Amino acid sequence: MSNTEALPLLEPETSATAAPCCPPLTERPLTAEEAERTATMFKALGDPVRLRLFSLIASHAGGEACVCDISDVGVSQPTVSHHLKKLKEAGLLTSERRGTWVYYRVEPSVVAAMGQMLRTFG
Amino acid sequence: MSNTEALPLLEPETSATAAPCCPPLTERPLTAEEAERTATMFKALGDPVRLRLFSLIASHAGGEACVCDISDVGVSQPTVSHHLKKLKEAGLLTSERRGTWVYYRVEPSVVAAMGQMLRTFG
Repeated sequence: MSNTEALPLLEPETSATAAPCCPPLTERPLTAEEAERTATMFKALGDPVRLRLFSLIASHAGGEACVCDISDVGVSQPTVSHHLKKLKEAGLLTSERRGTWVYYRVEPSVVAAMGQMLRTFG
Repeated sequence: MSNTEALPLLEPETSATAAPCCPPLTERPLTAEEAERTATMFKALGDPVRLRLFSLIASHAGGEACVCDISDVGVSQPTVSHHLKKLKEAGLLTSERRGTWVYYRVEPSVVAAMGQMLRTFG
């Protein structure tokens, strides 16, 4: 009898879309597959509330924040949680539960990859 | 009699949302107004077809392209034109008519501002 099912592989915390991707946009046209992967990341920051939450976490002391640290963005806590989940699904945040609260942290490699695509402008 | 109406001010080609904005996201939380302005730019690249079109123009010879240069993105020419209009409205492209065709060009200051916001990661 195989014990494969009893020994699941450890999955990294980040989502499958998080793999850094793609050359600077001035270098060559993206393939359909590359565009599909990368548009998700840009879309995640394409909402004013998510962008504020992301900047709040990115600039928070220690580089992380929990929902308990977040106020004054003009939306309810369930809405905050919903948007944080979207940012996590896009690979831009990772999370870790500590006691009562889930702490969110920016995934620097993914954000650096987005910055890399916009490099060579300006 | 005033001749003000006969001498309209020359408007720059880029849209009102195009003004470069905002410090690196690690520096401080964005204000609601900053997030509103900037999310538009990220949202414009948050669609796979628009991202491919943008990379196609950004990497095209001479840094510009017209709809006549664009094929093989799997959507019709009216859809291409629709997406180019969205990118222009977000301030990421400028356009210029020459004869039959409208030529599109990346607005480097706006894209550099987006890159600047993602700087200091990685």
